[in-house]
Amino acid sequence: MPPPPPSTTPVAVLGCGLIGESWSALFLAHGLDVVAWDPDGAVLAALPQRVERLLDQLQALGTAARPGRLSVAPSVAAAVEDAGWIQENAPEKTAVKHSLYAEVEAAARPDAVIASSTSSLTWSDLAAGVVRRERLITAHPFNPPHLMPLVELFAADAQVLARAEAFYRGLGRETVALKKDAVGHIANRLASALWREAVNIVAEGIADVADVDAALVHGPGLRWSVIGAHMAYHLGGGPGGIAHYLDHLGASQERRWATLGSPSLTPEVRQLLVDGIAEEAAGRSISTLEAERDRGLMLALAARQTAKQGEDA
Amino acid sequence: MPPPPPSTTPVAVLGCGLIGESWSALFLAHGLDVVAWDPDGAVLAALPQRVERLLDQLQALGTAARPGRLSVAPSVAAAVEDAGWIQENAPEKTAVKHSLYAEVEAAARPDAVIASSTSSLTWSDLAAGVVRRERLITAHPFNPPHLMPLVELFAADAQVLARAEAFYRGLGRETVALKKDAVGHIANRLASALWREAVNIVAEGIADVADVDAALVHGPGLRWSVIGAHMAYHLGGGPGGIAHYLDHLGASQERRWATLGSPSLTPEVRQLLVDGIAEEAAGRSISTLEAERDRGLMLALAARQTAKQGEDA
Repeated sequence: MPPPPPSTTPVAVLGCGLIGESWSALFLAHGLDVVAWDPDGAVLAALPQRVERLLDQLQALGTAARPGRLSVAPSVAAAVEDAGWIQENAPEKTAVKHSLYAEVEAAARPDAVIASSTSSLTWSDLAAGVVRRERLITAHPFNPPHLMPLVELFAADAQVLARAEAFYRGLGRETVALKKDAVGHIANRLASALWREAVNIVAEGIADVADVDAALVHGPGLRWSVIGAHMAYHLGGGPGGIAHYLDHLGASQERRWATLGSPSLTPEVRQLLVDGIAEEAAGRSISTLEAERDRGLMLALAARQTAKQGEDA
Repeated sequence: MPPPPPSTTPVAVLGCGLIGESWSALFLAHGLDVVAWDPDGAVLAALPQRVERLLDQLQALGTAARPGRLSVAPSVAAAVEDAGWIQENAPEKTAVKHSLYAEVEAAARPDAVIASSTSSLTWSDLAAGVVRRERLITAHPFNPPHLMPLVELFAADAQVLARAEAFYRGLGRETVALKKDAVGHIANRLASALWREAVNIVAEGIADVADVDAALVHGPGLRWSVIGAHMAYHLGGGPGGIAHYLDHLGASQERRWATLGSPSLTPEVRQLLVDGIAEEAAGRSISTLEAERDRGLMLALAARQTAKQGEDA
């Protein structure tokens, strides 16, 4: 029988901006203790209050039954010394992260996993600054991590990957594993590809910003919140599934791909986007729009819970 | 005072495959009478029973309070002679549609609108076969139209466009208007752009089909069911919104775009996709997967109704 996995609590949260505060709330809501550190003392001091609002959201979703304890640490060493899991949310600069990892490795438990939330750097970029690379992973959440289920993992070591999958799934997250590390992981590559064409449609004068967004939200976005793009073509192929689809419509997809645009973010295109968003926002402030987004997300997540209970029943 | 718009009931539904049956259910659920025609007598005879199942779904969503009357017509002329609205769902072949339009124009009321559900042809393609072009529009639904809210419109005549917006919005649809006609309208261009990178990720060995789909469903798909891609970058820009985002991260998006792939659907890639879907489906049949998709969609739509009631309150 394999030994039980090392305890993951407390969790060290390094960097307490939007990502760090959201991770903190998620960890706490699942009963894990959190020791947080940030180089900015004011950010750290405000953290407990900021986390309260997020915990309220998680409570509304029914996931904050036995909250853990949140404490703040005066140094990286103090934050990580007892931690079984270290979630790093430092700025997206390789040198900053490497320097942080040196401090972490000097003080951390030997069995602690160092998980980077990096969105734009790769595991290889980060591993270059780590002595014991096998315990470094990338664990990229989709923002905000306390609400969005996705965590994209890359680990060089299969056992560490298995620990990471168990850890994040235990927090109600949906994990995917990259087979090799890639800039943008999976989700941001997909998002970037879609946005390129969304910009192109505006740049070409085919439709306005607000109509592009509405088409996405009421069409493919809604569908992709339920089934993936590959699976959608499987179902689009009728009884013959994706094999039938590829045989009969693969060539027309390739022709469609050839008609898609490659826009540049010129000053003119920039202005079209800025003006278009102003029209779509129709006077709503960023914070109003964020509140609407969070309310919509919470309702969508509650609907998923209902769907999942139906499948499990 | 302008005269009231011409009556749209009954609606003629020409072509009764998956799209036609779904439109029929939507029209009926909103109290419109439907006169359906299809060149295949067996398809037409089975229509009333097929529509029943879809009406049940709409009733579950609370939108089938006063169903209209469904009848079938022995010819195109008989289907359209009384119709105020004509929804055409013929095969995606220009010649087939042109020949159908000739029959329609010979028999239809002069005020009737001819709305094509075409997904892959443009208004210009279709208008070449119509005498009174101003009453031809493209009205592309996202499949299945009785559940998916999106209808993408293109009309050459502003008054006809306004009638179309009123008609489809009256059916609870969300309309967007193209400023010029384009292959794939908006939504399928976006879907095609995303799928190209989804295929690339599999082809490059970055991740498996099932993980690409899971990343989409639990990440950007969920987000895009709530806010559009442009708006997401507006909120991603913090207090400075999209202008700040473009100024600070626009260049990194352009670099990301340059790293996206341009895959071909070679036999090897085809096999990766077919095998990957088999793994993702894990033995579930197409009909089981469709039922799961429809259940998830219905729950997501119910959550939207709740969100909308909150905004209206």
